Amino acid sequence: MTLAEIARELKVSPSTVSRVLNGYSKNFGANPEMRARILEMVEKTGYRPNPVFRSIRAKKNRQIAFSFYSRSLRQNGETVDRALDEATRILEENGFTFHYLFHPRARVECYPVPEWKVAGMVIPDVIDPAMLRLIEEHRCPYVTLNGVCGEAGSAVMSDEPANIRMVMEYLYRLGHRRIAYLNSPPVMERHHSGIEREQGYLDFLNARRLPVIDGYGITPLPVAEQFELVRRQSATAIVTFQLEIAVEVLETAWRRGVKVPQELSVVTFDDSWHARHTIPPLTCCKIAANEMGKETARLIMAKVADPEAYKTEMFRFAGEVIERESTAPPPKA
Amino acid sequence: MTLAEIARELKVSPSTVSRVLNGYSKNFGANPEMRARILEMVEKTGYRPNPVFRSIRAKKNRQIAFSFYSRSLRQNGETVDRALDEATRILEENGFTFHYLFHPRARVECYPVPEWKVAGMVIPDVIDPAMLRLIEEHRCPYVTLNGVCGEAGSAVMSDEPANIRMVMEYLYRLGHRRIAYLNSPPVMERHHSGIEREQGYLDFLNARRLPVIDGYGITPLPVAEQFELVRRQSATAIVTFQLEIAVEVLETAWRRGVKVPQELSVVTFDDSWHARHTIPPLTCCKIAANEMGKETARLIMAKVADPEAYKTEMFRFAGEVIERESTAPPPKA
Repeated sequence: MTLAEIARELKVSPSTVSRVLNGYSKNFGANPEMRARILEMVEKTGYRPNPVFRSIRAKKNRQIAFSFYSRSLRQNGETVDRALDEATRILEENGFTFHYLFHPRARVECYPVPEWKVAGMVIPDVIDPAMLRLIEEHRCPYVTLNGVCGEAGSAVMSDEPANIRMVMEYLYRLGHRRIAYLNSPPVMERHHSGIEREQGYLDFLNARRLPVIDGYGITPLPVAEQFELVRRQSATAIVTFQLEIAVEVLETAWRRGVKVPQELSVVTFDDSWHARHTIPPLTCCKIAANEMGKETARLIMAKVADPEAYKTEMFRFAGEVIERESTAPPPKA
Repeated sequence: MTLAEIARELKVSPSTVSRVLNGYSKNFGANPEMRARILEMVEKTGYRPNPVFRSIRAKKNRQIAFSFYSRSLRQNGETVDRALDEATRILEENGFTFHYLFHPRARVECYPVPEWKVAGMVIPDVIDPAMLRLIEEHRCPYVTLNGVCGEAGSAVMSDEPANIRMVMEYLYRLGHRRIAYLNSPPVMERHHSGIEREQGYLDFLNARRLPVIDGYGITPLPVAEQFELVRRQSATAIVTFQLEIAVEVLETAWRRGVKVPQELSVVTFDDSWHARHTIPPLTCCKIAANEMGKETARLIMAKVADPEAYKTEMFRFAGEVIERESTAPPPKA
């Protein structure tokens, strides 16, 4: 039964029914008997207000929209996935609801604002602040996660210069002097993580006067070919930009009969279930995704509470090296 | 500049500006000169209509809401992920937009309808039709994907009885007679796939008069213990409910020195990037996720086009066995 039908049945206007249901009293005085009859009828018929109108009517909007650059969920790295888990958990605990929107970079030149009212937005993996133009124009409070932000937003990022230094120092302490780095695939070319890790790799080698192993740049070469390239340069350790590259390095080593870690150490960025269950399990740099998720939730809730508190801020979190069975001292020459 | 400011500047009412912008002509005659001045001003100021109002005003809603049972993206199996990729690709091609909503089973007893107007819904992994009550009451057109549906919906499912039979026949033809099945973890207990695969496993053994290997039921036991259990019963092949179990079976075999596939064959349900890159790469039953995604898109678009065409339908798609390096004939006794 609709609201209009209830009103017709009781011979009152639909707005009277609506006002009684929503407990309005300002400038509105339905007589107590009619009020009781309306509530009884609503109870009897099991009528539920249309959620669209209820949302428009609601004074306080607590919807957070998450806007992704890809239509495919699998495109999110482990870091973003785990940070989202934590951020959405905290938002829910605080009475917020949320939904995910998708705007492939190939189709849009900037992230659109949602077609409905939202309190704020979270945008993962932004590589170009110009893509936030519409959101900034609409003065929608927003936080970017694992990417850069524009003038009116805040960015929660991983501290990549610290992370790559940590990994290099770990391998150096194990005794490695010929360390290779296999960077991101071209699809992530402009993301800050690949750029900063590559720079940190070169900086570390330079500071310790270690040889640069050719093959550290972003390349469309298959991993098996990159493997051959760095092994020809006698690399004893390989650091990979992400899990998928490390998995292919392990596979290539297995096919070539190269023993990991006895003959070759492998370290990857990003921890995950799969990193713990490769053969052998992978030593990794665990990105501080939980802390990043917590900070993302804290920031967007603060901005929603005070939309005038617009200021650009950037928060950086360093991770940690988790040692597993894919690393060991280099073989004796 | 807002619509109200443009109206003030031109000394007309905001609704006049709005009507000109939206090309209304019914019961509305702005004089041509004013119409031109309004359009010129809009052009000059770069004004863009508020997308919230634009959505409310739009006669034709083309938003499809996808409603998930979990807050975490990683909870989706590969099948649902790949089907969603395909379904959303087709929806986009046809001018639909979409967004994802999350309603953890632990928190809600049934899926809510969105707080804004949508044309239809797609709901993955439904295990209990009662959870669709609100959506059916609101007469929202919907399709379930990889799960069951209620009276007013349609379900796109994988043909699990056919899939498990295919896998069992493949192993039987290789010569295996002692075949174990490791079922889903308890979290998926009530999903049709685990129930149907278990039944199909037992039916096959019964039809061929083969021994049942204890350990096929849903259990909270760690995979390493299940591995020991079925190996004590001299199983020469293990079929797993999902990739994660197969990965742990490979890991356990590696730690115990059991050679795959020479001493033990492993087959998993679900194909994915990781299934292709385990050591050794996994033979799998590839679920017909692409076909399921196509059908989901076709169905929801048909229901949106004709909301009166409510009828319960169930569509089943069978997959195929992809042979890789984790399977071989059983070792000679």
